[in-house]
Amino acid sequence: MKKFFYLFETAYLGYRYHGWQKQTEDVKTIQQQIDRQLNYLLPENKFKTLPASRTDKMVSAKRHFFQLYTEKPVENELDKKLNYFLPDDIQILKMTEVDRDFQIIGHTSSKEYHYYFAATQEKYPYASPFMTFFKDPLNLEDMQKACSLFVGEHNFKSYCYKPHSDKQFMRVVDECEIIENNYLKANFFPPKSYVLRVKGKGFFRHQIRLMMGTLEKLGRGELTYSEIETSLKGDQGIIGYVAPPHGLQLYDCRLTREE
Amino acid sequence: MKKFFYLFETAYLGYRYHGWQKQTEDVKTIQQQIDRQLNYLLPENKFKTLPASRTDKMVSAKRHFFQLYTEKPVENELDKKLNYFLPDDIQILKMTEVDRDFQIIGHTSSKEYHYYFAATQEKYPYASPFMTFFKDPLNLEDMQKACSLFVGEHNFKSYCYKPHSDKQFMRVVDECEIIENNYLKANFFPPKSYVLRVKGKGFFRHQIRLMMGTLEKLGRGELTYSEIETSLKGDQGIIGYVAPPHGLQLYDCRLTREE
Repeated sequence: MKKFFYLFETAYLGYRYHGWQKQTEDVKTIQQQIDRQLNYLLPENKFKTLPASRTDKMVSAKRHFFQLYTEKPVENELDKKLNYFLPDDIQILKMTEVDRDFQIIGHTSSKEYHYYFAATQEKYPYASPFMTFFKDPLNLEDMQKACSLFVGEHNFKSYCYKPHSDKQFMRVVDECEIIENNYLKANFFPPKSYVLRVKGKGFFRHQIRLMMGTLEKLGRGELTYSEIETSLKGDQGIIGYVAPPHGLQLYDCRLTREE
Repeated sequence: MKKFFYLFETAYLGYRYHGWQKQTEDVKTIQQQIDRQLNYLLPENKFKTLPASRTDKMVSAKRHFFQLYTEKPVENELDKKLNYFLPDDIQILKMTEVDRDFQIIGHTSSKEYHYYFAATQEKYPYASPFMTFFKDPLNLEDMQKACSLFVGEHNFKSYCYKPHSDKQFMRVVDECEIIENNYLKANFFPPKSYVLRVKGKGFFRHQIRLMMGTLEKLGRGELTYSEIETSLKGDQGIIGYVAPPHGLQLYDCRLTREE
């Protein structure tokens, strides 16, 4: 069946979806929406879609990829047609034909995630598809300093959701910082919001949200630097918590070969 | 059961909800979210909630009201507690105790709806909770001129979804215009967007979306002024179409008595 190979660059707002991966037909997911349109646009052509990485419920992407495998070649304008028929919150940015050596998962070289948040008890309902609101006051300086603890090669077992004991937990985080949010701006946002920027080759399920949950706990004074240091040395259990999904965005995804 | 009466001013982003009114337990609605928290916050106190008007699936509100009827008095801080427990996209702005003469539906004096839209084939996935994208080029000037046809007292049967023949269709629209959108601004919005502003005492189900659908058809050159004029004289059937819900926002709702 796998005869023709296409790479699609995409962006989407994940707020009303239950993640990337298809589930049952009555659960709205990104893949379900894409496959549904491909079913219509590629009659009598067997196909399969595979993402560079799965994203969770409510999580958005600014730059993501999926690969399309088909039995017969597809027409050049397929990306435009997909864009036309897909809902307004899912966008195809580019389509490229790739050869059979291309493996979307093997060829992912780095990912950058953003976690947008604000510390306020005030509500900003129109901002909720983009950021999480932490209700307690946060010591931002402490949180910013602690970010550097994550940079480098560490054992991220404490930042892996439901870890299997046979898994390799050593991973490298290339960049980790909390900065003021100047990426997403709107007059219906709180006056100040922040973004946790994390960059690396690959992440475990819920890793960024567990890192955010840990930093938030530190910001509330419920954790210390040394506890975070210890948590990065191996099996210390989860010390933070999984921060809510709607602040998370896959900001960038780089492939070693983008053709 | 109806012994104590409270008025709540609210705002919400409707994008991931199936409208205001409660349906079955597995369908997310605004009322379901509110009632669920009230159930928890008002144990052993029978209650009922009633909105100033229902909103459809995906429709948002900047200022809306609901009335709460209870058997026993509630504590003063109930609004704060509700805000704390409600999801980030539903906000309680104010709570006031009202007397038994207050009837939320009878006391609604005017409503202002906004329908946000842009004419572009480009996709702006992060803007989709706030506006609708019309893919064909639109003659904005024609649409702006046609807005005045709706102002005044007309027979709005053609702008009523599934009209019953015994219904009174004469209604007054106080204001109707299309202006550039300077209400909602974000760096992830298209460079230009517009808003259809409609103000009046009350509207039929889907009336604003049918008016928008009609104006859009005119903007595409598929309808004439005189067809719109005729449509406002009585039973001419639906001449436009129901525009998508996610551009619609209940911008303001005024009560004759807000205490």
